[in-house]
Amino acid sequence: MNRLLVFQTDFGLSDGAVAAMYGVALSVDEDLKIFNLTHDIPPFDTFEASYRLFQAVPYWPQNTVFVTVVDPGVGSSRRSIVARTKLGQYIVTPDNGSLSHIARAVGIESARVIREEVGRRKDSENSYTFHGRDIFAYTGALLASGKITYDDIGEEIDPEDLVMMKGMYPVISETSILGTIETLDVRFGSLWTNISREQFEKLGIRPGESADVAILCGKTTRFHSFVPFSHTFADVQIGEYLLYVNSMDYIGLAINQGNFAKAYNIGTRDPWHIRIDKIRTPL
Amino acid sequence: MNRLLVFQTDFGLSDGAVAAMYGVALSVDEDLKIFNLTHDIPPFDTFEASYRLFQAVPYWPQNTVFVTVVDPGVGSSRRSIVARTKLGQYIVTPDNGSLSHIARAVGIESARVIREEVGRRKDSENSYTFHGRDIFAYTGALLASGKITYDDIGEEIDPEDLVMMKGMYPVISETSILGTIETLDVRFGSLWTNISREQFEKLGIRPGESADVAILCGKTTRFHSFVPFSHTFADVQIGEYLLYVNSMDYIGLAINQGNFAKAYNIGTRDPWHIRIDKIRTPL
Amino acid sequence: MNRLLVFQTDFGLSDGAVAAMYGVALSVDEDLKIFNLTHDIPPFDTFEASYRLFQAVPYWPQNTVFVTVVDPGVGSSRRSIVARTKLGQYIVTPDNGSLSHIARAVGIESARVIREEVGRRKDSENSYTFHGRDIFAYTGALLASGKITYDDIGEEIDPEDLVMMKGMYPVISETSILGTIETLDVRFGSLWTNISREQFEKLGIRPGESADVAILCGKTTRFHSFVPFSHTFADVQIGEYLLYVNSMDYIGLAINQGNFAKAYNIGTRDPWHIRIDKIRTPL
Repeated sequence: MNRLLVFQTDFGLSDGAVAAMYGVALSVDEDLKIFNLTHDIPPFDTFEASYRLFQAVPYWPQNTVFVTVVDPGVGSSRRSIVARTKLGQYIVTPDNGSLSHIARAVGIESARVIREEVGRRKDSENSYTFHGRDIFAYTGALLASGKITYDDIGEEIDPEDLVMMKGMYPVISETSILGTIETLDVRFGSLWTNISREQFEKLGIRPGESADVAILCGKTTRFHSFVPFSHTFADVQIGEYLLYVNSMDYIGLAINQGNFAKAYNIGTRDPWHIRIDKIRTPL
Repeated sequence: MNRLLVFQTDFGLSDGAVAAMYGVALSVDEDLKIFNLTHDIPPFDTFEASYRLFQAVPYWPQNTVFVTVVDPGVGSSRRSIVARTKLGQYIVTPDNGSLSHIARAVGIESARVIREEVGRRKDSENSYTFHGRDIFAYTGALLASGKITYDDIGEEIDPEDLVMMKGMYPVISETSILGTIETLDVRFGSLWTNISREQFEKLGIRPGESADVAILCGKTTRFHSFVPFSHTFADVQIGEYLLYVNSMDYIGLAINQGNFAKAYNIGTRDPWHIRIDKIRTPL
Repeated sequence: MNRLLVFQTDFGLSDGAVAAMYGVALSVDEDLKIFNLTHDIPPFDTFEASYRLFQAVPYWPQNTVFVTVVDPGVGSSRRSIVARTKLGQYIVTPDNGSLSHIARAVGIESARVIREEVGRRKDSENSYTFHGRDIFAYTGALLASGKITYDDIGEEIDPEDLVMMKGMYPVISETSILGTIETLDVRFGSLWTNISREQFEKLGIRPGESADVAILCGKTTRFHSFVPFSHTFADVQIGEYLLYVNSMDYIGLAINQGNFAKAYNIGTRDPWHIRIDKIRTPL
């Protein structure tokens, strides 16, 4: 193992909780190289936890260990697991849907349930509310340091039996795609959809050509216009919008140097949808 | 020494101040392993600085060096010190109460006053306003790297003479405890009291039983109800409240998947108190 | 090279973008020691990016590699460069003014344009919008790890030809200086000017003496008073204001334990100016 350990939580960094996780991990092995993915996941938002893993995990070396703790069910019977991606990274997580995007984009090779005899920090038996520190960080540190192997974690389970979120894929016809807005490029306000570049390319729209794009909130249309498909922001004027392939190889919708989400007051996930048509529908 | 160095400030991370501290430390020794506790302490809030140290320090390896800079008296005659906890971690800090919670929970083994000839960065004599960079980070780096020993820091002082905060302990009778609300579990809104598990257990309330709990703002009662004492959030329904032993082994008050502090508009510290009675008082 | 790599962006830390940059860098060399300057630069604010480099870079060891990505022109023809400071640190950046403050305070020794054949991550040719991950972090990692040398980066260019910001220097007469407010000491609200200690000292105002200070917003005077020049905050009463030499060796204006910017509703940069007169002008 390469001793790379990456933490993600919904705890924020304003108190000492994440630092306690670091301390526990470094007490397992002082040579661990620990990093943060983000600790700004909105409280209990397992969808966002899943998305942020997708955004970062594939770029890290094989054998990096990720620990993600967004855990509304702490103390319930939900399983604590370690999964191995098809690219060879490990993810320590409650089994609550946090692997949905990685499963879609990369694939889960295998998964194991954490045995508490292995993965619970000594003398933490009276602590029921901070599994991030007492189980997840501790287990991640044991694995990243090589003090235990993946096989030691616990019983193997079928990746097909992991909890996955619904509605991960767009609905595709020959001339149209109906997708969702999964997240925003937060600070810049661009919309990031669940429509992959390959799915979009099947519509046959080339760079420089325009598509008919509608943003729907339930049954209400909140935006409807022709939008040029561009390589990059600088291909259009400042203030103009564009469809583009974002850094995750999915379709994004943006205003060059503007904030699309604020301009049209657009939200994410249900009940928001995006429809892209090759042939213009009547406005 | 293990080269572990941990910084805490009230500077935030939006400017270059903390990065300058990192640079100074790594100029002492490029192999230091530097981490953040938090830099989100509200400006000048020495109580919060003290609490966050308590939340993190005990989980770190022996010989880890913490540097905490929440320093309303920078440039005044307040002392700059290094303390050693009874668990063997070092804390570099202005002597302004920041060790109060560690003293209560862990104990201070010894303390030394930093001599400027040792602990001030060369060529920083004209800088009077950034002791975090020029004295605290520099001294912490010297100590963590082993370039100086603890004895080199300066004159030893009696830990009893360190500045400590008032009102750290609850008032306890046979059937009742009157404590304070020291902080919030920020993002989740749970109240964290200064009543330890041991103090609470003397009331004889067992998991599953309820206590009579009142939250007082000065002489005004802001919450008063029976509350079940539970192991963990999942032991009660979503939206129900619970008394529980928090991750610091103190008593917390929460709403499962809700925000207690927001729901009842509760604040922390003076003039807020919590009273827990074994026998119900008339509502 | 010492393997020290420092990132600065306007991406924030709420999503996975910065963590993807870390992953790319650690995929180049797992032993890189990566740190953050700040990721809270306001979107597209190249002036602030430049200021924050100035605040941190000079304190880091020779050969540290900084990567700064505040890049409103991503995808346009602006150049991607690596500069070497006169103190020996490297800065990987779009050529958009981000080196202005370092050039003023430290000096740029040399600069090179990044050749894409060297500095673009393999298989990222279809990605046009995230040069931070695909070019800047990757190039920085190659350089910090020693896998390429500075000479390998690409063609050398004259530092005089780098994009620099206007208005970096104050206007000085024998008894008066007219400068700008470059930034705030964010959390504390002190004003940080572009007047250096040396420039101020030529007015002949000694510690303890007062100067005539005016803050102007365009042609409107927003503050005008005698202000004592003090070594440090604690030299004046709580709530009193002071002129002082800040931690960057430039002149600051503050209220001891107060917030000057909020108190007088003061902003930064154009159209804000500060005028310091040795002899009092009529109020």
